[in-house]
Amino acid sequence: MSLDQDRLDEVLARVDAQLPDSLDRLMDLLRIPSISTDPAFAGDCNRAADWLVDELTAIGFEASKRPTPKHPMVVAHSEGTGPHLLFYGHYDVQPVDPLNLWDRDPFDPQLEDTPAGKVIRGRGSADDKGQLMTFVEACRAWKAVTGTLPGRLTIFFEGEEESGSPSLVPFMKENAEELKADIALICDTGMFGDTPAIVTQLRGLLGQEVILTGADKDLHSGSFGGIAINPIRVLADIIAGLHDENGRITLPGFYDGVPELSDEMRAQWQRLAFDSADFLGQVGLSVPAGETDRTPLEMIWSRPTCEVNGISGGYEGAGFKTVLPSKASAKISFRLVGTQDPNKIETAFQDYVRSRLPADVKVEFKDHSASPASQVEISNPAFEKARRALSDEWEIPAAYIGAGGSIPIAGYFQNILHTDPMLIGFGKDDDQIHSPNEKYDLESYHKGIRSWVRILSALT
Amino acid sequence: MSLDQDRLDEVLARVDAQLPDSLDRLMDLLRIPSISTDPAFAGDCNRAADWLVDELTAIGFEASKRPTPKHPMVVAHSEGTGPHLLFYGHYDVQPVDPLNLWDRDPFDPQLEDTPAGKVIRGRGSADDKGQLMTFVEACRAWKAVTGTLPGRLTIFFEGEEESGSPSLVPFMKENAEELKADIALICDTGMFGDTPAIVTQLRGLLGQEVILTGADKDLHSGSFGGIAINPIRVLADIIAGLHDENGRITLPGFYDGVPELSDEMRAQWQRLAFDSADFLGQVGLSVPAGETDRTPLEMIWSRPTCEVNGISGGYEGAGFKTVLPSKASAKISFRLVGTQDPNKIETAFQDYVRSRLPADVKVEFKDHSASPASQVEISNPAFEKARRALSDEWEIPAAYIGAGGSIPIAGYFQNILHTDPMLIGFGKDDDQIHSPNEKYDLESYHKGIRSWVRILSALT
Ligand SMILES: [Zn+2]
Ligand SMILES: [Zn+2]
Repeated sequence: MSLDQDRLDEVLARVDAQLPDSLDRLMDLLRIPSISTDPAFAGDCNRAADWLVDELTAIGFEASKRPTPKHPMVVAHSEGTGPHLLFYGHYDVQPVDPLNLWDRDPFDPQLEDTPAGKVIRGRGSADDKGQLMTFVEACRAWKAVTGTLPGRLTIFFEGEEESGSPSLVPFMKENAEELKADIALICDTGMFGDTPAIVTQLRGLLGQEVILTGADKDLHSGSFGGIAINPIRVLADIIAGLHDENGRITLPGFYDGVPELSDEMRAQWQRLAFDSADFLGQVGLSVPAGETDRTPLEMIWSRPTCEVNGISGGYEGAGFKTVLPSKASAKISFRLVGTQDPNKIETAFQDYVRSRLPADVKVEFKDHSASPASQVEISNPAFEKARRALSDEWEIPAAYIGAGGSIPIAGYFQNILHTDPMLIGFGKDDDQIHSPNEKYDLESYHKGIRSWVRILSALT
Repeated sequence: MSLDQDRLDEVLARVDAQLPDSLDRLMDLLRIPSISTDPAFAGDCNRAADWLVDELTAIGFEASKRPTPKHPMVVAHSEGTGPHLLFYGHYDVQPVDPLNLWDRDPFDPQLEDTPAGKVIRGRGSADDKGQLMTFVEACRAWKAVTGTLPGRLTIFFEGEEESGSPSLVPFMKENAEELKADIALICDTGMFGDTPAIVTQLRGLLGQEVILTGADKDLHSGSFGGIAINPIRVLADIIAGLHDENGRITLPGFYDGVPELSDEMRAQWQRLAFDSADFLGQVGLSVPAGETDRTPLEMIWSRPTCEVNGISGGYEGAGFKTVLPSKASAKISFRLVGTQDPNKIETAFQDYVRSRLPADVKVEFKDHSASPASQVEISNPAFEKARRALSDEWEIPAAYIGAGGSIPIAGYFQNILHTDPMLIGFGKDDDQIHSPNEKYDLESYHKGIRSWVRILSALT
């Protein structure tokens, strides 16, 4: 239920007072190396799920670990009146390589002083353990002050988000009645610079691994070079041919379903005064790559892309080895927008690759994920309430924005549960998620918890 | 000194009788993992050099280990009359990865029965430990029967051949007086099918590592994909542009100094009846790649090539990671012929790479080797004597052939020591040198030892 101003201030004060303890709890969770893509860490994923069940139970939720063929889900409920709110986060994290680029053990997190303020350093601090804990800690403070949890909540934590979410759709379908809600709060996104933001436009993702095989063994390039086909060269041709000279993707039909930005949205985004030099400068770049006729913000939020996420083949060790390799492989992903159909694009991509194969080269494809883009409908009045609550906490008007990353769950909430997804998160551009030295600002954590208190009061 | 027929037969009989012991000694040497390119095995390289010094000393050579900044040389002398013969081999071996493709521990060698006969299986069995030991064992049998070593010999073993021979030229220059000989016997090549062969045409090698850097850290392809430059894509463009649609290399001036095959050599090579379907079939291929207007044998022996020996970048582990990588790198090598100048081609290559770099991408080059091709002058009568000795042993007329691989030492003997190099080896096409499951036929080892006995008798 909504809190009056005094009660709200009391809960917020409680958040401030418990911050050191909230931080300790997050550190405990960060110490669990729950890397979902690597089977070696399956036990740790399970341990992270157990840890969350225990925490949620301690606060008063009815919490349980729910098995899947891979890593378990965590689902927790609280009784109450008012609208049913679903909260989603993921407890799994990205791999940590290259480990040598980390300044500390990725799973020995620490609060660090930096010129820009205090940061929580460690794998998963921003993506997504720090973020999901903002909600848990908001509920804890609420309960401590009011004696009850904030209304009718369902918490839903996934452990496979960073490895393609293989169990998510089946689990949502099987448990649709239990998970269906009036609104789904998803905390896995960021602010726009220093502006708090609700993401209403999300790109989809298609991931494909391509493995080429030429000779049936590695050859000596002295004996065979020039006469035996080299699969690295074939792969390079394939990758080089995926874009034209204007940065457009060449697959036939690729741009079917890609909408032009509405004039209204274009005007709104222009007001955000996105500084691409600044955005690129933080990572050592200066010139926007990509489509030559699009603005940087369009490219990140509303245009489809094709990237090579990894490539491998032949001798990669120290020194030189004049091998002519048998195999070469690449991990390639497409960001999708509008109504682009991931299945059609997968077919177009595989056809394209096959059309470029010379004699004697075989191809194997591995599918890694396929989710369409999603466009959130913001007519639900909960959006405007949440936007105002965010604006109050950060003392800056919150914005509706797009996001470059894919959060397939947003689309699943819409299509499977018919529940509007509301994406609110407190990550910063320089959090280095998926990279070495990932961090989460202490401010993101602290004001994130406070933000959820305000939003919960506004929505319940 | 030359042996008369009876004495020669005695020495050959001694080779046959001592074969089991000769094999045991080779196995000892093969058990030392002397991988020269990987600093972790520096101690093993040193151990292999010590082992050779001990063996040569035991036979009666004046042998010593000679330090270099990296791995030691082994030099041994025997006193005698007649022409001064220099024998060269290398005791270092290639790395063994991918280890999982080996059917046994690469450094636990074994004699195996195969449908095609007995083979010695293990890293270095063919390249080059088995080959250099054919000469050592020939000297041992000669000494056992005649009481002396076969004349005025210098043995010269290198330990850096598989890692670009950084110490070789300085060492040869410093010790030119000691190493200068009437002819240099080099045992690091193969037969032509079942035909014993002397290689008179050798390609040179230029090795270049290219490391591209875009952003100063790995990025998330959701946040930065489309606007941040991807160095894997840049590298793919660079590699794709190195060849035109006819398989020719596009670097300006690349074909300067590439000679056309003489009619005489073309005719001789045609007589060899090279079966490219058979050659490619042994490694699971069927169609010659490469220049569309050249015969397969030309492409392997007398045409320059450009190959990618390794490529690396982004996430290469199991599963998928939507990283937009900071770095991508490739190891690229050129095989050179005629009077192609490795330094000019290095410059042309680096200029080409730089010309293809978009804004914000930096390049670093690492040089790995640069040696011109060499053409051996066979007018020295020693060549015809050796060819006849080989023909006697194998009961097939021996041939003068080309070789696709680079053996820079052949050029160095010519240019630094003014000594004619004679390349004779007993490797087979299916030895899988530089690859998993390397082997050396027991017949190559046995008849290789016998061949040297005959050649030594013919030349001394
Ligand atoms: Zn995430
Ligand atoms: Zn060799």
